[in-house]
Amino acid sequence: VPSTADPEVDKSFTLDELAVHVGGKLRGDAGLRIHGVAALEDAGSDQISFVSHQRYAAEAAKSGAGALLVNASYQELDRPAIICDNPYLAFARVAQLFMEPPWLPLGVHPRAFVAESAQLADGVCVGPLAHIGMGVRVGQGTRIYGGSYLGRNVRVGEQCLIYPHVAILDRCRVGSRVIIHSGTVVGSDGYGFAQDENGRHIKIPQLGIVEIDDDVEIGANCTIDRATLGRTWIRQGTKIDNLVHVAHNVEVGEHNLLVAQVGIAGSTRLGSHVVLAGQVGVGGHITIGDRVRVGAKSALSHSVSHGQDVLGLPAVSKKEWMRTYAAILRLPQMRDELKELKNRVSQLQQALQGTDND
Amino acid sequence: VPSTADPEVDKSFTLDELAVHVGGKLRGDAGLRIHGVAALEDAGSDQISFVSHQRYAAEAAKSGAGALLVNASYQELDRPAIICDNPYLAFARVAQLFMEPPWLPLGVHPRAFVAESAQLADGVCVGPLAHIGMGVRVGQGTRIYGGSYLGRNVRVGEQCLIYPHVAILDRCRVGSRVIIHSGTVVGSDGYGFAQDENGRHIKIPQLGIVEIDDDVEIGANCTIDRATLGRTWIRQGTKIDNLVHVAHNVEVGEHNLLVAQVGIAGSTRLGSHVVLAGQVGVGGHITIGDRVRVGAKSALSHSVSHGQDVLGLPAVSKKEWMRTYAAILRLPQMRDELKELKNRVSQLQQALQGTDND
Amino acid sequence: VPSTADPEVDKSFTLDELAVHVGGKLRGDAGLRIHGVAALEDAGSDQISFVSHQRYAAEAAKSGAGALLVNASYQELDRPAIICDNPYLAFARVAQLFMEPPWLPLGVHPRAFVAESAQLADGVCVGPLAHIGMGVRVGQGTRIYGGSYLGRNVRVGEQCLIYPHVAILDRCRVGSRVIIHSGTVVGSDGYGFAQDENGRHIKIPQLGIVEIDDDVEIGANCTIDRATLGRTWIRQGTKIDNLVHVAHNVEVGEHNLLVAQVGIAGSTRLGSHVVLAGQVGVGGHITIGDRVRVGAKSALSHSVSHGQDVLGLPAVSKKEWMRTYAAILRLPQMRDELKELKNRVSQLQQALQGTDND
Repeated sequence: VPSTADPEVDKSFTLDELAVHVGGKLRGDAGLRIHGVAALEDAGSDQISFVSHQRYAAEAAKSGAGALLVNASYQELDRPAIICDNPYLAFARVAQLFMEPPWLPLGVHPRAFVAESAQLADGVCVGPLAHIGMGVRVGQGTRIYGGSYLGRNVRVGEQCLIYPHVAILDRCRVGSRVIIHSGTVVGSDGYGFAQDENGRHIKIPQLGIVEIDDDVEIGANCTIDRATLGRTWIRQGTKIDNLVHVAHNVEVGEHNLLVAQVGIAGSTRLGSHVVLAGQVGVGGHITIGDRVRVGAKSALSHSVSHGQDVLGLPAVSKKEWMRTYAAILRLPQMRDELKELKNRVSQLQQALQGTDND
Repeated sequence: VPSTADPEVDKSFTLDELAVHVGGKLRGDAGLRIHGVAALEDAGSDQISFVSHQRYAAEAAKSGAGALLVNASYQELDRPAIICDNPYLAFARVAQLFMEPPWLPLGVHPRAFVAESAQLADGVCVGPLAHIGMGVRVGQGTRIYGGSYLGRNVRVGEQCLIYPHVAILDRCRVGSRVIIHSGTVVGSDGYGFAQDENGRHIKIPQLGIVEIDDDVEIGANCTIDRATLGRTWIRQGTKIDNLVHVAHNVEVGEHNLLVAQVGIAGSTRLGSHVVLAGQVGVGGHITIGDRVRVGAKSALSHSVSHGQDVLGLPAVSKKEWMRTYAAILRLPQMRDELKELKNRVSQLQQALQGTDND
Repeated sequence: VPSTADPEVDKSFTLDELAVHVGGKLRGDAGLRIHGVAALEDAGSDQISFVSHQRYAAEAAKSGAGALLVNASYQELDRPAIICDNPYLAFARVAQLFMEPPWLPLGVHPRAFVAESAQLADGVCVGPLAHIGMGVRVGQGTRIYGGSYLGRNVRVGEQCLIYPHVAILDRCRVGSRVIIHSGTVVGSDGYGFAQDENGRHIKIPQLGIVEIDDDVEIGANCTIDRATLGRTWIRQGTKIDNLVHVAHNVEVGEHNLLVAQVGIAGSTRLGSHVVLAGQVGVGGHITIGDRVRVGAKSALSHSVSHGQDVLGLPAVSKKEWMRTYAAILRLPQMRDELKELKNRVSQLQQALQGTDND
């Protein structure tokens, strides 16, 4: 594998600085200078890696990493380390120190289109061929990459990343520190029709908006439909993977995870800390409680209360699904047992008739 | 929720005008001026709402709406109303009066690219950074929003809305009053390969087109592939939700509903008034009759005759699915019964041997 | 159906030239001039079609095609023909002779944005409103259509087709003869988060790239995420349909087929010649052997060894699935049999008690 590092990002921190940053305890050379993060197998002597579990001890021993993030139970401290409760979380925090958003020159590129009435705060970057419509307002430090589209009267907060080919359509609102990946559409019309006497579908105008709160991240090629009236709402801290569909008037709660290719039908409300695994479908007009987890590819069409784990087609509690699935796996055996039992009963009948005839 | 109304759309109609428009019967102040539509809970005194069912009577009574669309059976007429057979359909028709397509200045924006040989009819709007290829023809009143792409020799009819970031590729044809939402691709290559002696996939050139008839609406981030030869065809009045895939040479009949994340494999033909619920997959080279309805997440791989309701994985008739699913739910109980029966038979055998031994 | 041929593509070959091209045996007029390919029912006297199976003999007899590609067992040679082992493969190869990529003028369109530091080889075409970032390098003969986006330091090889609205993000690498259809995103961030003490999701920076090898084709509106560290890798000759999701650090082997709406979770490795049918979901961190085939809509969450056919939810071997599914279909009958058997046993018990009482 050729090196894929961006040559122009060159930052470094001392191990001591990193220990303070993650709230961990330093072991070894406090002044060791770390230039980046890497996986155990790829890390070099100026990089830091992490050991999330004792079972990776052998791999860690062989790693070329200059330092490790480990937890207190980790034994083989053959090199400088930072001891912390959750080495994976600490790794995320250290990696963020080295992360740079994709490069974009400050200010508005002359090849961008920016309407006169748009208001861009200090530190906003707008790439070539981006489109900023009338009345748009963008907060400090937000980067709008080339080829993305902000419609009329759109609001975007501070420190956001709007990647190439994103479309945020008229009047939609985006909070601060939001990341939206390429090809995602925010504010397409909801799918609403009334049927006339001849079975023709008459469009219900979709007059609402989409509102996206702070610290949300939305993957590539997602679709977040605007509300019929009111708003479709993605709440704070929720992270959405690629190719996810969120229908009109849905409310997605705080700190949810919606994995790739999930679809949520109209007017459904999700609580906080909900996890929908990949390719899950959620029906319309239902309520999903806090901390509910739905297994991959499940179809959920009824409301679910707080803390439930559900899966299946249609989705049931994990316990019920396990029991039913175990029974299905034993079906062929059940058929054999049933057949054998029929024979035994037939023999009994014959034997009994023999007794009668005695 | 902050107000999301577009401040520059200000239309109003008298209640009498609305009654005539929906073919309903007026009760109360004919001259009452209505400025918009809203849900029961949000409506103000200058707005009209609707009551689709008697069970919303309490909500209706509390509503601030200045007027209501109701059916003849609705009792509590405490305010001006329009009585009609289908209040939801009437609401759609009234809402359409207030709907304005997203604003776009008349004519071609100087920052758009329009090939010299393109022919744009009167009243066509083309937004900044849109791309209109050679030989394109666009009919009266069609709006092509910024950042959308029409390839070479594309035809688009009258009064269409082509949203930002739509791509309609070379030679494809779009009828009149068609709406295509952002990120949708019309005319990508069909997925066709022949295998050579070494298992390599040799591309079958995709030489056909996509043809989209009048009054079709296609959601965001859909993909409609061009035919290998001939055409992929979306017929009149069909409404397609987001992230739907229609493969090469498919014919989607009139007035269909294809809900989000549906996929249809190559050369399949759908009749008219077909409904495919969310995340359905339809196999290739099959025929689906008129008015067929396929339940969410089903996999349909065989042809289905007119009027059938099917669902499941693989899809079967709704009746058969219900029966099978009920049996599956009783499986654990069946296992218990089988076990108990085995015990009883064993006891019988012992008893019979006892009898024999007497 | 109106003619959909591109009027400006006019090539022709003699039947003899075509026979040599496909390595087949000529029967009839060697000098017959062929101007295109068509399906049996559409072909005219200057076009060639193919007969893949004896069962299409009647259709072939009625066809207006001037010549046919057939195999040696085909009898009714009523017109010029090329005899070959695999007429469908031969048809693909002949059709490719007539295929022209969508037209684009040579060189960089003045309305494109190309960074000064980008290096474009001879014969590269860049359409209007395309974006070529800093440090990009593009190989000979590659066509980058209008509205597509190449980020900073992207590499694209020779003879590629990058369709309108494709986004290839910073540092990603694309081989030669690669085709990427509209709306596809290459190099969006992988979906990786660590949870903090309060259940908030902390982003794991995605520092890697996507690498796409030679002769790959990727459909419309797909998402190929960049690796956390290292690369997401699509290997040589693989063909991907529309709306497919490939997560971070996935390795897709050589000559795979990934049908529409497939999703593959992170760090999974696919062997060569793997086929994933439509809407399949594959879990993370697993290994799929060479020539594995996964049935449509299956959910695969465990590793599978070479050559297996699997399907289902969850996926099992095709044989096991068939057996289990057959048992499920007979479930209602099993219930009836179990009920009948219970009655018989009850009667036996009564009879036996009768015997005892004698």
